[in-house]
Amino acid sequence: MEYRIIKSPSQGTLDILNRRKGSGNTSPIGPVDAVGLIQGRIIEMVCAADVAEKAVGVTVEDIKGSCPQNMIMLAIFGDTASVEAAMEEIKQREKRGTEEW
Amino acid sequence: MEYRIIKSPSQGTLDILNRRKGSGNTSPIGPVDAVGLIQGRIIEMVCAADVAEKAVGVTVEDIKGSCPQNMIMLAIFGDTASVEAAMEEIKQREKRGTEEW
Amino acid sequence: MEYRIIKSPSQGTLDILNRRKGSGNTSPIGPVDAVGLIQGRIIEMVCAADVAEKAVGVTVEDIKGSCPQNMIMLAIFGDTASVEAAMEEIKQREKRGTEEW
Amino acid sequence: MEYRIIKSPSQGTLDILNRRKGSGNTSPIGPVDAVGLIQGRIIEMVCAADVAEKAVGVTVEDIKGSCPQNMIMLAIFGDTASVEAAMEEIKQREKRGTEEW
Amino acid sequence: MEYRIIKSPSQGTLDILNRRKGSGNTSPIGPVDAVGLIQGRIIEMVCAADVAEKAVGVTVEDIKGSCPQNMIMLAIFGDTASVEAAMEEIKQREKRGTEEW
Amino acid sequence: MEYRIIKSPSQGTLDILNRRKGSGNTSPIGPVDAVGLIQGRIIEMVCAADVAEKAVGVTVEDIKGSCPQNMIMLAIFGDTASVEAAMEEIKQREKRGTEEW
Repeated sequence: MEYRIIKSPSQGTLDILNRRKGSGNTSPIGPVDAVGLIQGRIIEMVCAADVAEKAVGVTVEDIKGSCPQNMIMLAIFGDTASVEAAMEEIKQREKRGTEEW
Repeated sequence: MEYRIIKSPSQGTLDILNRRKGSGNTSPIGPVDAVGLIQGRIIEMVCAADVAEKAVGVTVEDIKGSCPQNMIMLAIFGDTASVEAAMEEIKQREKRGTEEW
Repeated sequence: MEYRIIKSPSQGTLDILNRRKGSGNTSPIGPVDAVGLIQGRIIEMVCAADVAEKAVGVTVEDIKGSCPQNMIMLAIFGDTASVEAAMEEIKQREKRGTEEW
Repeated sequence: MEYRIIKSPSQGTLDILNRRKGSGNTSPIGPVDAVGLIQGRIIEMVCAADVAEKAVGVTVEDIKGSCPQNMIMLAIFGDTASVEAAMEEIKQREKRGTEEW
Repeated sequence: MEYRIIKSPSQGTLDILNRRKGSGNTSPIGPVDAVGLIQGRIIEMVCAADVAEKAVGVTVEDIKGSCPQNMIMLAIFGDTASVEAAMEEIKQREKRGTEEW
Repeated sequence: MEYRIIKSPSQGTLDILNRRKGSGNTSPIGPVDAVGLIQGRIIEMVCAADVAEKAVGVTVEDIKGSCPQNMIMLAIFGDTASVEAAMEEIKQREKRGTEEW
């Protein structure tokens, strides 16, 4: 899995993410402090999404990749500390390397 | 084949899976104890689906991947023990490595 | 090419195959004794389909893969002996390795 | 490039090819003596199509692969001798390995 | 990531880019001094887009690749100096190799 | 990048290219002396298209590949000398290997 954090993402960057999120573009994510990005295979992304969903203070969206139904990237929106905490938790789970998440 | 188990999956995670399941989103899977995920090539997934379908206490769904008709992931929903039993059975079959499943 | 045989396939497995067959879902394949699966590149699948079509006692369907028009898997439906005979014939042809099928 | 010839192709095999040909399914190819199949990258397939189009006694169709607009396979329909001659001509051109076809 | 700059792009080249940009073809980009192109994986492209969006004097567009929702290329339109400055900034960020952009 | 030239392309070959060109099939390219084909990644193809657009006596079209919005091949139509000159110019640019085209 690969990880990136963008602090104070520009509106154009949010537009790109909003156009591609799995839940549709009807309720776009507004200005946020930070957005965390995680890229990987679909089985890993579902697990990472569950970890992030259970974290506090963040909104999780799967971002469509090379085809409409393909989820190869997660975006985690929120204040910087919450996004970093959610990302850290996912890294810890990945490091453990167990089947159970 | 790769295997993952998510215990007490969050609603957001179920939403992601429901949006992608092959049987459509009209009868979404509700809260479950656990969800098992298996990723592999289509020929393996059809065999694994059949093993899981014949297990008790679980619901099996093929999850669409990079294009609408592509099945690269199975999700097995149910109580934790049943999901683990179905996953174990599939692993045994894979280990035998025979053509006949 | 890869080969698998599922004996007494469950209804859920037949549903997955019926949703993806190239001839459409209007005349679904009903309960069968066995289903043979063959996965490969499109040029090999067309040749294998022709061998299976000429075998007796089986129904052949191309199963759509990662995109609607993609055929990467064949399913051969029928009684166990007929499916096994058709699969064996395809393996013999593949082993000969000639251009002519 | 890869080459295969199917002699006396079954109706089911022609149906599979007719469902996927680039010119649409409105004027399906009927029973033929033989069908030659060539698989390769798109740039090679366009060149091979041109060689086959200039051969006598054959009908050339591009067969859609993993997505509607993808041409990864050519089918050359006709009597056995004509199909073999067209295939041989394409192999000769490929062997020369020049940019000009 | 890979980088290219086209100076005084032709109208045909702008047409190709306008047909593929993520924000749609309703407000096409007109004649510009230069266009910078960056190709990479989706996680890198989102980060690069954010850097370019925060640069001055340029317009950033994600260019659809092999499927409608796929972003594998960014195009940065503007006067030559501004495009070069934005590209240079992205290269510096890439070189630092940190998770935070 | 890969290069091919077809002299006196057949009508069937032009039909294949016309069905796939990015500008649509409404104004098909008619009989031409020669067609040059170039295959590569999208970032290279945009640059090559710009070089060809600035050459004289040729018409440039991007040919859709494995999905509708994917451009993996350029076709350059015109008299043989003009097509060869445009192809040569693109090769020279590729050989220089600089970011600026």
